[in-house]
Parts: sequence; structure tokens; C-alpha cells
Amino acid sequence: MSKKLPIGILGATGVVGQRFIQMLEHHPWFEVAWLAASDRSEGKTYSEAARWRLKSAVPANVAAMKVSPATPEGAPKIIFAALDAAIAAELEPRFADAGCAVISNSSALRMQSDVPLVIPEVNAGHIKLIDIQPWHKKSGGYVVTNPNCSAIGLVLALAPLQQRFGLEAVMAVTMQAVSGAGYPGVASLDILGNVIPYIRNEEEKMEEETLKLLGQLNGKQIIPAAFAMSAQCNRVAVEDGHTESISVRLKAKAKPEEIIAAWNNYRSEPQELKLPSAPERPVVYLEANDRPQPRFDVDMGAGMTTTVGRLRPCGVLDWKFTVLSHNTIRGAAGAAVLNAELLQAKGYLGGGHAK
Amino acid sequence: MSKKLPIGILGATGVVGQRFIQMLEHHPWFEVAWLAASDRSEGKTYSEAARWRLKSAVPANVAAMKVSPATPEGAPKIIFAALDAAIAAELEPRFADAGCAVISNSSALRMQSDVPLVIPEVNAGHIKLIDIQPWHKKSGGYVVTNPNCSAIGLVLALAPLQQRFGLEAVMAVTMQAVSGAGYPGVASLDILGNVIPYIRNEEEKMEEETLKLLGQLNGKQIIPAAFAMSAQCNRVAVEDGHTESISVRLKAKAKPEEIIAAWNNYRSEPQELKLPSAPERPVVYLEANDRPQPRFDVDMGAGMTTTVGRLRPCGVLDWKFTVLSHNTIRGAAGAAVLNAELLQAKGYLGGGHAK
Amino acid sequence: MSKKLPIGILGATGVVGQRFIQMLEHHPWFEVAWLAASDRSEGKTYSEAARWRLKSAVPANVAAMKVSPATPEGAPKIIFAALDAAIAAELEPRFADAGCAVISNSSALRMQSDVPLVIPEVNAGHIKLIDIQPWHKKSGGYVVTNPNCSAIGLVLALAPLQQRFGLEAVMAVTMQAVSGAGYPGVASLDILGNVIPYIRNEEEKMEEETLKLLGQLNGKQIIPAAFAMSAQCNRVAVEDGHTESISVRLKAKAKPEEIIAAWNNYRSEPQELKLPSAPERPVVYLEANDRPQPRFDVDMGAGMTTTVGRLRPCGVLDWKFTVLSHNTIRGAAGAAVLNAELLQAKGYLGGGHAK
Amino acid sequence: MSKKLPIGILGATGVVGQRFIQMLEHHPWFEVAWLAASDRSEGKTYSEAARWRLKSAVPANVAAMKVSPATPEGAPKIIFAALDAAIAAELEPRFADAGCAVISNSSALRMQSDVPLVIPEVNAGHIKLIDIQPWHKKSGGYVVTNPNCSAIGLVLALAPLQQRFGLEAVMAVTMQAVSGAGYPGVASLDILGNVIPYIRNEEEKMEEETLKLLGQLNGKQIIPAAFAMSAQCNRVAVEDGHTESISVRLKAKAKPEEIIAAWNNYRSEPQELKLPSAPERPVVYLEANDRPQPRFDVDMGAGMTTTVGRLRPCGVLDWKFTVLSHNTIRGAAGAAVLNAELLQAKGYLGGGHAK
Repeated sequence: MSKKLPIGILGATGVVGQRFIQMLEHHPWFEVAWLAASDRSEGKTYSEAARWRLKSAVPANVAAMKVSPATPEGAPKIIFAALDAAIAAELEPRFADAGCAVISNSSALRMQSDVPLVIPEVNAGHIKLIDIQPWHKKSGGYVVTNPNCSAIGLVLALAPLQQRFGLEAVMAVTMQAVSGAGYPGVASLDILGNVIPYIRNEEEKMEEETLKLLGQLNGKQIIPAAFAMSAQCNRVAVEDGHTESISVRLKAKAKPEEIIAAWNNYRSEPQELKLPSAPERPVVYLEANDRPQPRFDVDMGAGMTTTVGRLRPCGVLDWKFTVLSHNTIRGAAGAAVLNAELLQAKGYLGGGHAK
Repeated sequence: MSKKLPIGILGATGVVGQRFIQMLEHHPWFEVAWLAASDRSEGKTYSEAARWRLKSAVPANVAAMKVSPATPEGAPKIIFAALDAAIAAELEPRFADAGCAVISNSSALRMQSDVPLVIPEVNAGHIKLIDIQPWHKKSGGYVVTNPNCSAIGLVLALAPLQQRFGLEAVMAVTMQAVSGAGYPGVASLDILGNVIPYIRNEEEKMEEETLKLLGQLNGKQIIPAAFAMSAQCNRVAVEDGHTESISVRLKAKAKPEEIIAAWNNYRSEPQELKLPSAPERPVVYLEANDRPQPRFDVDMGAGMTTTVGRLRPCGVLDWKFTVLSHNTIRGAAGAAVLNAELLQAKGYLGGGHAK
Repeated sequence: MSKKLPIGILGATGVVGQRFIQMLEHHPWFEVAWLAASDRSEGKTYSEAARWRLKSAVPANVAAMKVSPATPEGAPKIIFAALDAAIAAELEPRFADAGCAVISNSSALRMQSDVPLVIPEVNAGHIKLIDIQPWHKKSGGYVVTNPNCSAIGLVLALAPLQQRFGLEAVMAVTMQAVSGAGYPGVASLDILGNVIPYIRNEEEKMEEETLKLLGQLNGKQIIPAAFAMSAQCNRVAVEDGHTESISVRLKAKAKPEEIIAAWNNYRSEPQELKLPSAPERPVVYLEANDRPQPRFDVDMGAGMTTTVGRLRPCGVLDWKFTVLSHNTIRGAAGAAVLNAELLQAKGYLGGGHAK
Repeated sequence: MSKKLPIGILGATGVVGQRFIQMLEHHPWFEVAWLAASDRSEGKTYSEAARWRLKSAVPANVAAMKVSPATPEGAPKIIFAALDAAIAAELEPRFADAGCAVISNSSALRMQSDVPLVIPEVNAGHIKLIDIQPWHKKSGGYVVTNPNCSAIGLVLALAPLQQRFGLEAVMAVTMQAVSGAGYPGVASLDILGNVIPYIRNEEEKMEEETLKLLGQLNGKQIIPAAFAMSAQCNRVAVEDGHTESISVRLKAKAKPEEIIAAWNNYRSEPQELKLPSAPERPVVYLEANDRPQPRFDVDMGAGMTTTVGRLRPCGVLDWKFTVLSHNTIRGAAGAAVLNAELLQAKGYLGGGHAK
């Protein structure tokens, strides 16, 4: 009998739900045990319900699994959620209230003051907010979230700079992949040979989530980071990988080699804990003058490494550079899986019977 | 017999050379009379020598025209140049020295102190630098240049703001079309499903040309504009049209409706002089929240109008917005043609025998 | 007061509906007077209801027009229909029954034995089927259809060969543009860097419609053409323009120059009648060895000319060649407009009060 | 000390050369020991000379290797060649003459009567032609070739049909990836949003190579297969993977389930010999009605499996279906590596000291 912890997935048929299934296929601690999706999928097998959009095949056991109704009854105690925000706002509290650990990729609750928004390398300590959640007190359930796919690469590139030099201002312009919009998502007639300079709510999320992620836990609340922040979000004809042109002003003087060293040497709790999905190197600086590029670099560290390149002085702020991260792995499913691994390592997933 | 002024084209077979030919096909003042390209094209007809990459057909008279050697002997007195920088550095002075008006799209001489770098709507007065060029004194020849394709859209969007509110800082991140790299230019293996965060020398050109264009003529020299400027240039899988995410800090307070009015009401010398290639409106603000987009907006004003959209406050500087302009029309061939029209209107093309 | 005939459009907000509006903006005989779309558009203005996906702007009068319910009451007597097949099957008979001339781009009724399926250059005589339609006898209304976007380019290329040499077998493999699937249509995640070797029902339509179009009217019925026919349909990452690799076996011996002459000299009733949307040349053979290509040739003849190229012997049948036509102009909206012009010229649009 | 056989690569910096290096990185029998490329690469390290276009990193030992002159002196006795045809025509005989086993992906010598053109699953026996090569008699050297990237997928799909039912006619229309043209290869301005219905010499190669591959060795010569054959080759905006729409006429009656079984059960010498690069299943039939697709299926069997789908009756010949294979793995580098493995297993690589 398997000693792995059973996992349920809310929103299992979508682009991120598929990535959950793919990433959990050979996971040492977790195994997919329950799947839920929208009403029209209910009762079908997963392979009937999902339009699988990944290169690897659907794992056979998952393909044959029946899609359950999206209610806590009968669901496992650990739930990965990849829901649209409006649905998440309703369902995630319901599952938490029923005693589930809801590890969410949805935006609905990210900015709620008692909900941790976590990148394990950056702000693992924020998970202590769980303790003040009313659900937790009542049933042991809780919600932990990971950030928007555009924020996570940026924050992984900023965290070493904040730690080492301090941040005063950050400007980000993104060129985001179509998989970030889910499936069917972006119509081909909208994006072939085109750039769309707008993604609904994305700039707001990127700005406020960045400040919360890089903020400080002060007793029962997060004091957001205080630097100035501005984001402009564009969609481009790329399948996977968000590329970002970044400029920053630092508090302390920095030499370029110090900045690059800060990135390349950045290690953190997931690396120390050897969490299964933690990349050996969370941030890698590429020396070639035309990298990172999504076509060549997006899969580094099995899609969990953020790559950075083109560090050079900025005529307005101090430094500019390019950041790339995989939006459905590091920016979504992988982010949630790593959060779950952190929670398990910290004893939040109930009894340590895994591992 | 035609009363039109005969025009020669240096670099006639390239992407920009082709646009020259297309734009001059029905021009009221100018007509193509002479074509030169690299040695291997010499002696061929144009249709044999050029790999035509535009939708409209090669004009019949041009198709049959022989490609001449790239020397001033036998060339007309008005030369449009679309040469690689290294070749331009050698050939443009030679033609100017021989008495030709060289209206250049090349980067070679743009930043030379006695060479005007001109967008007729923005800094028409800079053409007076012609008078101090040694070539002009000797033979009547001269060189006038237009800016890089990434700078021109930006400067058209900035000029109304500079005029009305003053500029303190400008940050630009570009998403540039592949036609900007000429033909064959960007390999498909490099750009399909990809973003390339690097274009050689492009950021430097964009920064320094912007400041020269928005600078002041002070006697015999240009005093560059004094605002802080930073550019990051990316290549995307778009055929035509450079999209740019811009942030600015203004000197004076501005309301959004004032900024939009400054763009929409911007008219300038080319419009007053009714130059044939001048767009009725050099800058147009689009109200839709997801525009401008290259697929839909790049041809506005026959490719000579710069479109702007998404004005909103910036958390680091004051305002951010998106700019789009057609890189081979407004950003190259059309820019040079409009420069030629300005020169003709100002009496610099020798006698006003056109029109 | 306008002397133009008022036109109603069913399915006005879709990709083909938009092309109708674009093509009718300056039409000499017709003008858009009424628009209908799905329930959720009702009562909105057209510019609110439609997500306009064309480069040219929405005509101002149409932008402000209210979207009407899709019922014959209050609708003009001439209706252009661009509906999904299931809806067309219900609505088109209802409008015909109410006395409307329904000029349809939908597939629902194309193969019905008393409904003309018409390309004016090819089988204009088939419109006589109108006379036997029960609707026509009852109310004067009727339905006339144009073929699927994949069939029309093929049939225009085949008709001159059938006429001159006879056809024994035709094999077609298509590479079809995404606009053929409507909007939102093909998801970008499905087509970026991809080929989809399947379009639902498309091969069946292409095969049977081709035979009906090239068939003979025999009293009250169409005897389909008798040659063998096979189609394979693929979707590719092209915005507009269906490219087709064709092989044919002819009844009579043919020299290549005779085949090319058959195409280039093909003129037909729409050309003789000088119908406003008829291209001067319905079929044009391109001599270059790598043409036609959608990027360069799709707009020939304002999108109404079918281009052909690469004629060469086939090792299995007799000849092979490449065909290209614009799928939303020649293959949809333009096809219907040309049908309407033919009907008007033949007195089927009620009294010739136009022009 | 390594027991692996040292390999030299001619044309090491190109797209196929890079695939050789990638595929040999962990090869159990072979190791890269020598690299040659064009004159301008000579003396540089490989990482300086090559513009690496693959996702995986350059193997460290290869990155540091010096690029040698392309002469047999100092080269290993086993040479993988990925040269342009014109250069191959000169160099490959020179290496064979000097005693090298030249395993070539180039087209230069494929159709020469004493040169084996081999797909190990299909016609392994043809390698006996080596014995009659003059080079072999003189020095022990020889040339063995693999087919064009468009032919190999087709032939793998045809071989089981030929074996089981016999072939009378084959029509192929290809939609080929840009990587098939090498690097820089296809210009992005030529292929974005486009289809190019022409690839130089490709149709001729595809037709004649298919017949040689499926031919019979009769003493000292190959009797080509006798079925009728026609190919039409198109380029599409896909990175890797040639998709082909195929129609065939069979000699014997076949039921669809028999055809599918013929594909799925096809096993051959490389599978029996367990050659390291042989896919477990050379041909796999996909049941989904819209597969194979390059985006999802091209990497099956590590890029060595040919996938087939959409079997259905053809109105002109008997059956039609879609074939997909990876053009730079199965269609180029992998084909040559598998040939080398076959040669080694058959004792043609000198002494069996590998393994």
C-alpha cells in the first residue's frame, strides 16, 4: 500500500490542472487521488473530460479516474486548486472550512490579509499566517497561495537583490506566453503576428503581489515591501515562458559582479530542506548577451529555475536586466507543489506520515 | 516629359529599399530613376536582383530598370540611402561630396555633429545643419538622416509631451518586428515561439538618437535634450510594427485628458505644408483598453501615424502608455521620403523645379 | 435618399459578418440596413456587440446601428447569412419562408437538392433552382448558398480545366488559415508551431460541394460531376488564405502552356456583366517557382482572385499544382456578395430598383 | 580509459551536426572525438564556432574541443557527415578513400548505384553494397547514407504496407518544419503567417529515394520499387516535425484494422538487435481523430518513432492518412546514428571492440 499522501485537484482539466497531474506523476511524497472540475466534466473519466495539452501522455491511472463533484465530501485533506478567481472565491473557503489544506494557484484570496502568499525560496516564514486563519482554528483547514505567473519570476530575481542591496524602485515590462491564459485562452486570430499590450488585472496583481511577497511578517500581518513598483503586461506569440524587461534602483551601491553573484549564489530553505521540486539553483545568470530566451531556457531546472541575463546600467534607475521563468511550472503548478512540499516539511500536512 | 524630380536609391534591393520603391510609385514630386545595390546585383534588372518581399507588385518600370554600380557618376542628385552602416559610412560621404543630397536611413552618420537627424514633425529646423557641412560648401551635396525605427515612434509620442509638459525621464521597452532586421534578417529558428531580448546596438541608438531629436539647435550645434533615458530592446514574432511599453516623468503636472489631447491635437510643419507623405494626424490615441496592436493598427495613416494607448499612472515615474509605429514605413522609408519632401519644400532640393 | 438596396446581415458579429460589413461599406448597389446576431448581442449597438477583428475601422453608420433580434419581422428583403450550421438550419428557412432572399454562407442547406450552390464564374445557371423552391412559390423568398472556403479556390482552379480538358480525378490537400474557423475559433495553444491534420466535416464538404458546383443542371436537379475526388484538410498557423496542393487527372491530353492559358484566360459571366465585386481575372497563374504564398498573394484582386502556381507533371495522376484563395473574402463574404450581385443582375432581387 | 569508438563529425556546427553531438553525449558505443566544419570555424573551440540551437546545453567536453580542418588526416575512422550536398560530393569520397566509414546524412551520394541508402528497419540488407565500393576494396573505407528528412517518415509508414499488402501508388503532400532547412535557413520574413509551396530539389529526392529504399537488392544493384509516386513539398511555420498527408493504392485488399495492425506491430532488425537508438516501436498509430500533431507527438520514442493517424478511405486511391516524424532526429542525425549502430552490429565498424 502506498505511503504517499493522497492529493485532490480542483480545476483538474485546465492548463494548470494538467501540469499538476504531470508534476505529480512520479512525486515521492504525493499522489493524485481525486479530481474535480466543472459540472460538465462530472462523472466522466479524466481522459474524456480533459483536452490534454501537454507533450507527455496522461498518466494511465489518472486517465481512468472519474471526475468528482467539486465538494469537500469525499475529497482528500490536501487540495491543489487551479480555479478561475470567481469560482475559487467560493470554493476555496468551503474546502478550508471543511478541514482541507487548500494549496491554491488562484488569485482570489492571495491578497487577503490572513492568507499566506508564498514562494518557498523567498518568504517561507509567511506560512505562519495559517495559524490565525479562522478555518484553521475551526477545522484545521487553511488556504495557502502562490503568486501570479508574472510575479514569481520577477520576485525570484528581486529577492537576492533586496536581501543584499535593498530595493528602492522596480519597473517591469512583461512579454507573456499564451499558456498563461489557460485553454482555449488566447485566440490564434488575436496573437499570430501580434502583441497584445493588455492582460486583464495582471498589472495590478503583479504590483501588489510583489510587494506582499517581499514584505515582512510582523506578528499577525504582512508589512508589504516599501519600494516603488510599476508593471506593464503584454501578451506575445510564445507557448510557454514569461520574459520580462526589468529596471531597478537599489539602496546600496552594487558592482555588476556582486549582483550576478547574488543571483547565482542564492540558495534558500527549499534547497536546504532538499524539497523534491526545489531546483538546485533557483536563479541562474546567463552570460550570453542575448539570453534568456523562452525557446532555449524555459525548461532549466525542470522549469523551476528562473533565468536572468543582460545585466547593464540603466539611464533612469540603476540597473536593467531580463528575467525568464516558466509560467505554468514555476509560475503555477510547480509553485503550488513546492508550497505543498514546504508545508509538509514544516508539519502542516498532518502527521508527517509521508516521506 | 515628366516634371518629377529623379531619385536614386542606394541599397535598393533590401527591405527598406523595396519600401522606397513602393512609396515612390505614385509620388507626386519624385520618381525612381536610378538604383544601386551590392556588386552582385550590378548589371541585372531590378526584378532579377531583388527578392521582393512586399504584397504589392514591383512597379513595372522599376522591375525592368538595370541596377547601377554604387558610384556617384551617372547618379541623380537626390539619393535615398538604405545601406548597412559600414557601407553607408563609406558611400554616403562620397555621394555628398559629389554634390548629391543624400537622404539616409542608415545609422552611420546620424550622430555626427553636423548631420541633421530629423523627424519633420518634431525638429524640422535641424536641417539648417546642412549649411555647415563641408560637402555642402564644396559641392552643394549634403547628408540628412532619419532615426532608427525604434526611436521614431517613441519620439513622435514624446514630442507633444515635451512641448506641453516637459520631460524628466523616459523608460522604453520595445517589442520589435522582424522586418526591422532586414532580409533575410532574423532566422525563423530564432524567433518562432520566442522572444530575443537583444538587438545589437539598438538600445544605444534609441537612447542617443531620442535625445538628439528632441534637442535644440543652438547656432551650429544640437544641444541634446537633458532628460534621463533608458531603452531595452526585444525582438518578437511580428512581421511589421514596433510596440513599445513606455514610462515617463513629466516636468509639469498633467491630467490624463490633457496628455491625450496633446497627442491627438499634435500637428506640425509637415501637416501645415501639406507634404504628400505627411499623415493628417501624426499621433492618434486609441481609447480601447487593449490597443494599439500591430496586427490591427500598424497601417493607420498609411503607416505614417504613430498610435498610442493605455495611458495610466506609473508607480515609479508619472505615466505609462503603449506606442506602436510601422517600422519600415514611418520608421524607415517613409521617414526618409518625408525628409525629402521637407527639404524640397524648404528649397534644399535644387530649384523647386518639382511640383 | 439612397437608391441602394437595403441589406440585412444574420450573424453580423462573426468573422464573416465583419467581412460583409467591410465589403459593403462602399458598395454601389447595396447598403447595410439591419444587423442581427445571437441573443446576447440584441439591443446593443454593433460596436458594443462585435469584437471587430479587421484592420479597417468599423464603418461609422454600422458602429452605431442597434443589433436586432434574428427574426424576419422588420428585416430587409435581402439577407446575407453567416451563421453556424445548426442555427442556419433553423433560421434560413424561416427568413426564406417570410419572403426574404437569403444569400447564405452557411453549410446547412448547401447540399439540399433544390438549393443552388453557386460560384458565379462557374455555375451561374444553377440559380434557376430558386424557381422550384417551395418558399419561392409561397412568398417569393429563397435561399442561395456559396461553397465552403476550401472548395471555392479549388473549384475556380478546376473549372477552366474541366471546361477545356475534362476531369477524371482530383486529389486535394489543404493548409487552411485560422480565420476559417471563426472567432475565437482556433486556440493559440493549438496552432502555434503546429499543424492540425483535421477540421471537422471539412473534407466531406470539400468533396461533395466540388462535385455539385461542377455538376450540370438538368431540369430540376443538379447532376454532380462524375470525377473521383479526395480531400485532406489541415490547419496551419496562417491568418488568412487557404493553400492547397492539388493533383488532377484530365480526360484530354494537355500541354502545360495550354493549362496555364486556360487559367489565365478564364473569364465568365461576372466579368461580362461587370459585377462590382467580380475580379477582372478570376484565376491568375504565377510564374515564380515558389508561389502562390498567402503572405504575398492572398489579396490579389481585392481578395477575389484565385492564384495558381507550380504546375508540373504528377507521377500518379497527370498534373500537380498549388492553389491559394482568400478564405474570408473569396471563400465566404465575397462569395456571397458576388452571388447577390449575380441575383440582382438576373432580376432576382426584386424589381431592379437598385441602380 | 574509454572503450567507446571514437567518432568524427563533418559539418559539426550545423543544425544536424548539433543533433549528432546531442545524441552521442551519452551513447553507449560511440563518443565524439573530432569535429570539423567550414574554414572559418577552424582552430576555434566548438563553443566559439557553433551557434548552438538546441534546448540542452553543449556537452562540456565538446564545447572545449578544437574544430579541426576537414581532412582525413588525424580524423577517426568513423565519420558522421552532415554537409551541404556540394561539399559532401567532394569530401565524402575523400574520407572514404582514406579508409573512413562515412555515415552520411548528405544527399550527394544517396542515389549513386553502389552507395547504400538505408533505414535500418526497412532495408538493412542494402548495406551489402559496401562490399562493391571501390573505396572499400582499396582502403576499407566506404559511404553509407540515410534518406532525406521528408522521405524517412513516409517510408517507415509505407514499409509495413508494402510488406503486408503491396503498394501500387503513393501520393504525398508535406508540411515541413523550418529546422529542415538548417540554420539560419528559412528567414522569418518568409514563413511567419505563411506557407511556402516549394523546397528546392525536395520533391525529386522524396520520390526517388522512396523507391530506392523500398527496392530490392539484386546481386550488385538495387531494383527500385515499381509503384507510382508523387510528392508535393511545402514549408510551414513549425520548428520541428514534418507532417505529411498521404494517399496510397494497395495491391491487396485491406481492412482498416489490418492496416493499423501492420503499423503497430511493425518490428524489424534494429528492434531485434536492440540497437541503442532504435525505438521500441518504429511506427505508432494514434487513435485520436486529430493526431498526429508536431506540437504534441514529434518527440515520441525520443524522436525516433514515426506516428500515423487518421486512416480513412480515399476517393481517388484506396486509403489516406497522416504521417509525422521528427526531421532532425529520425530524419537526420538519429537516422545516421542508427545506421552506424547497424554497421557496428554487422561488423562493419572495425573489429567489434566497442560494446
